[in-house]
Amino acid sequence: MVIERAAGRIQVVETTGRTHLGTVEGLGDLSHASVVFGRDGRHAYVFGRDGGLTRIDLLTRTITHRIRQAGNSIGGAILQNGRVVAAQNYAPGGIKLFDADTLELLAEIPATGADGRPSKVVGLADLPGQRLAASLFEAGEIWIIDASDPRQPAVTKLPAGRQPYDALVTPDGRWYLAGLFGEDGLSLVDLWQAPPAARKVLSGYGRGEAPLPVYKMPHLRGWAMAQGQAWLPAIGRHELLVADPARGWQEQGRVPVAGQPVFAMARPDGRQVWVNFAFPKNDTVQVIDTATRRVVKTLTPCRGVLHMEFTPKGESLWLSCRDDNRVEIYDTATLRRVATLPADQPSGIFFTARAQRMGM
Amino acid sequence: MVIERAAGRIQVVETTGRTHLGTVEGLGDLSHASVVFGRDGRHAYVFGRDGGLTRIDLLTRTITHRIRQAGNSIGGAILQNGRVVAAQNYAPGGIKLFDADTLELLAEIPATGADGRPSKVVGLADLPGQRLAASLFEAGEIWIIDASDPRQPAVTKLPAGRQPYDALVTPDGRWYLAGLFGEDGLSLVDLWQAPPAARKVLSGYGRGEAPLPVYKMPHLRGWAMAQGQAWLPAIGRHELLVADPARGWQEQGRVPVAGQPVFAMARPDGRQVWVNFAFPKNDTVQVIDTATRRVVKTLTPCRGVLHMEFTPKGESLWLSCRDDNRVEIYDTATLRRVATLPADQPSGIFFTARAQRMGM
Repeated sequence: MVIERAAGRIQVVETTGRTHLGTVEGLGDLSHASVVFGRDGRHAYVFGRDGGLTRIDLLTRTITHRIRQAGNSIGGAILQNGRVVAAQNYAPGGIKLFDADTLELLAEIPATGADGRPSKVVGLADLPGQRLAASLFEAGEIWIIDASDPRQPAVTKLPAGRQPYDALVTPDGRWYLAGLFGEDGLSLVDLWQAPPAARKVLSGYGRGEAPLPVYKMPHLRGWAMAQGQAWLPAIGRHELLVADPARGWQEQGRVPVAGQPVFAMARPDGRQVWVNFAFPKNDTVQVIDTATRRVVKTLTPCRGVLHMEFTPKGESLWLSCRDDNRVEIYDTATLRRVATLPADQPSGIFFTARAQRMGM
Repeated sequence: MVIERAAGRIQVVETTGRTHLGTVEGLGDLSHASVVFGRDGRHAYVFGRDGGLTRIDLLTRTITHRIRQAGNSIGGAILQNGRVVAAQNYAPGGIKLFDADTLELLAEIPATGADGRPSKVVGLADLPGQRLAASLFEAGEIWIIDASDPRQPAVTKLPAGRQPYDALVTPDGRWYLAGLFGEDGLSLVDLWQAPPAARKVLSGYGRGEAPLPVYKMPHLRGWAMAQGQAWLPAIGRHELLVADPARGWQEQGRVPVAGQPVFAMARPDGRQVWVNFAFPKNDTVQVIDTATRRVVKTLTPCRGVLHMEFTPKGESLWLSCRDDNRVEIYDTATLRRVATLPADQPSGIFFTARAQRMGM
């Protein structure tokens, strides 16, 4: 699926013949929209910025259900068993759980921190075992939500640090990492630990000491795991950090890049990490060889590169060119463009293989 | 798909409602049959022991193409781009490449070792970049095949050690590991190294010193990667070996188990490894917690447990009970059986999520 953000529309595409299959319209405000898929890949759940939640049948390319579930929403997740969809909201803040077949509301979890005030919810991700993790921006907490009974979710609340602004779970579901806007470092939860606790890692990577102006917050779901190491866009800095989970998430190195990184995404085999950038470098994409930790190619594919998505086995990368109204497809072996598809201000690109991956 | 080995038939099943959708008959000798999927999961390629290669449309549940491509075959692979299917054969030995749409023969690669004699081919696996790796039993070689031009494949031949009997590629496509029947150790190729070479690892794990009789060769494709470590069934011994790729594949530990392991499979999040066994323990399945490296559950689900397959996100495990004519489904959180489906002497179970994973 390719989000056409301004038109409130999505394109359904396929990656074998690289063709457009159809469109679905009437999805509301799709700026910053995101998508999760039902476990067999047939149904997509689109989270609009305006709080719209739409269930699409990709086979028939029709909307089966649509609700306005909040005033301002920033994405969602789907439980491991595929039966419950969760939305994370800015206004009013909180998490809502919906039946994945009907979008019936099952539970509402107000995001009220220890100080009693409402928080924005960010970094919602599914975990193994019908659980979710999320971060509360104002409250500085990480929550682990057991939704085995989705009408009675049980919440474990962990103090996490100042202003977690986004987060991810590693592809194995073990580590939940939240970026901190209010501190120089990140907050980490080892989900295998009982009871779980959040601790600070990568403190002093540079966010705190004379931070650069931040043109666009990096997306943490874009963090890459490659060869067991995490490749992180350093907020406000022109570099990626490399950290090793097996060594306490210590910093193992930095890779200088062309601008403020937004997404850093690993090719599925981990040999390459592709990076896009905030304005004014949002016409640029860099490819890093993870074996040598060097930029091996700098591409300037188009204006306004907003998002990238690899095909499931990584032979191609699709990227969206918002300001040039097209999607470009690269061969990741030759690093050459192999196809172009027209699209109206495309933003997010989401392939159905996400249905089968944790935290996606 | 569930292979019904004696009936020459496959069942098409789905893992959301856990139901049987239909059957496809007329597939010949399916003892030891294996399956790969086209990149969108619609078509399955079934490799029969009798050299039959069948392309099935899972949507319509019909055979679209079927050929007898060898006298005795032991499986195959599909290239990263989905356009070429490869078969590895015992008799006559060799590798054949076929057009994935038509099963037209594109190339034939005789498995002739350095000594000029034909070899059985084992351990065929797809690699990133339209490449394959395979092992030659008699010749003691590992071959890396570049099939970018599938009518003119280019082969790199590496000496590998005595009698490689099966092999795997790690899920990231970096390491190709072959088990050796004629030596006490394994042969490893780092596919990121240029030029590639094979070297011996885990030498002296016990295969050589007074080996136990081997009731059934372990399947190396069942080797598990969990938390960055490899969990290997020790051939002829009642244990799994744990080895660490980041530390030169040195042995990190052993886990005693109930019998001679056949498959050791990691739940997708890596927290559990499930193991089944050769006769006389082929009624038993053990679950290992990878955090503590201990067996946490011993199940005796049925007679003749031949194969296991996790659902893509790992909430369930399906296992085949050949001698009890059924498939059992376990919840991997509670370790309890949650469903049973009838099947006629089921062997392999293959879910379409394999379409999107390397080496599968």
